[in-house]
Amino acid sequence: MPVLCETNDVNTRRIPPRSGTAFELKRGQNLTVIDPEGEQVSDLVAYNADDTQEAISSGRSIDYAGRIFLTTGDTIYSNRSKPMLHIEHDEVGRHDFSLTPCSRDTFRILYDDDNPHHGCQGNLEQALHPCGILPDQIPIAFNIFMHVAVDSDTGVIKVLPPLSRAGQFITLRAEMDLIIGMTACSAGQSNNFRFKPIDYRIH
Amino acid sequence: MPVLCETNDVNTRRIPPRSGTAFELKRGQNLTVIDPEGEQVSDLVAYNADDTQEAISSGRSIDYAGRIFLTTGDTIYSNRSKPMLHIEHDEVGRHDFSLTPCSRDTFRILYDDDNPHHGCQGNLEQALHPCGILPDQIPIAFNIFMHVAVDSDTGVIKVLPPLSRAGQFITLRAEMDLIIGMTACSAGQSNNFRFKPIDYRIH
Repeated sequence: MPVLCETNDVNTRRIPPRSGTAFELKRGQNLTVIDPEGEQVSDLVAYNADDTQEAISSGRSIDYAGRIFLTTGDTIYSNRSKPMLHIEHDEVGRHDFSLTPCSRDTFRILYDDDNPHHGCQGNLEQALHPCGILPDQIPIAFNIFMHVAVDSDTGVIKVLPPLSRAGQFITLRAEMDLIIGMTACSAGQSNNFRFKPIDYRIH
Repeated sequence: MPVLCETNDVNTRRIPPRSGTAFELKRGQNLTVIDPEGEQVSDLVAYNADDTQEAISSGRSIDYAGRIFLTTGDTIYSNRSKPMLHIEHDEVGRHDFSLTPCSRDTFRILYDDDNPHHGCQGNLEQALHPCGILPDQIPIAFNIFMHVAVDSDTGVIKVLPPLSRAGQFITLRAEMDLIIGMTACSAGQSNNFRFKPIDYRIH
């Protein structure tokens, strides 16, 4: 069940800092993901609720959009080239769809951390376990609000503070019955080293 | 078994135009992928031979390299953050690691093709089937020689003719026992609409 914390809106649920959740999103329902304090990232993954071998695919989505940055009007496709989520409204306009969720290994390999946090990967693994989804099934996430700059010539990437300001949001419509996994990101590099919550609403 | 055609070198195997193959690559073995005529793409996927749920991960590899374009000295990691392939030598220096193999759906959605070719996806599905690898297990490929330009500001991608000239190659060393799937690409956009073979050598 989703973590439910105090917010101003009783229909809004809160994902506490450095944690994750999973829930069902029925076809036609909208999911609004809000950055309540600004400059925070939420890694989102989605699976066909009837067959969790079908999951979001950055490779298909980027190919069909013709862009590595998706925004309002774009569709997130599955590995079977079926529409899973449609971006209805996007107040921020910059998200990442190239990186896997941060993990113990990310912190170990990239940041030489001896005793690393289990990251968004670990949080998604825990949240998705009751849905029968295994760690190996976690794909490249749609990293909402994550700001990854890419150098066209060298391909060098830089993880920058998100462009999202407090209260800004993105709304996605489910194009099939889905299981959603979502986090409030655990990597300091993604949120300017100020670990914060993420809010969301289903409507 | 790999497709074996006539080439000048008896140790070199040929993948005919618009087809694919699969083979084992033992830890420590080198795989050299050659573009015999120039401007052709080979989609490469790799799996842990002992547990095919472990496969190459563009998201992990790009994160750890800090670059979306991999070349000599870079490592291709698995979804479990284990090194799978190390790029020993790269004569071209431009490959894509953002897109999934072209498929019937690619040709239908992007090119309005009524009777589409089954693409690299179909070729990989057929080649990997005897290894017990299912279509849903085909990840974002390491698209050797594929030239995808990215606009830093808008994220717009353009598939351009490969930079590879006739005879140029890349050599990758296996860091674990692997099953490799590989194609001679079926998408005209990737090879300047001149469908050509791909050669490879294991040494």
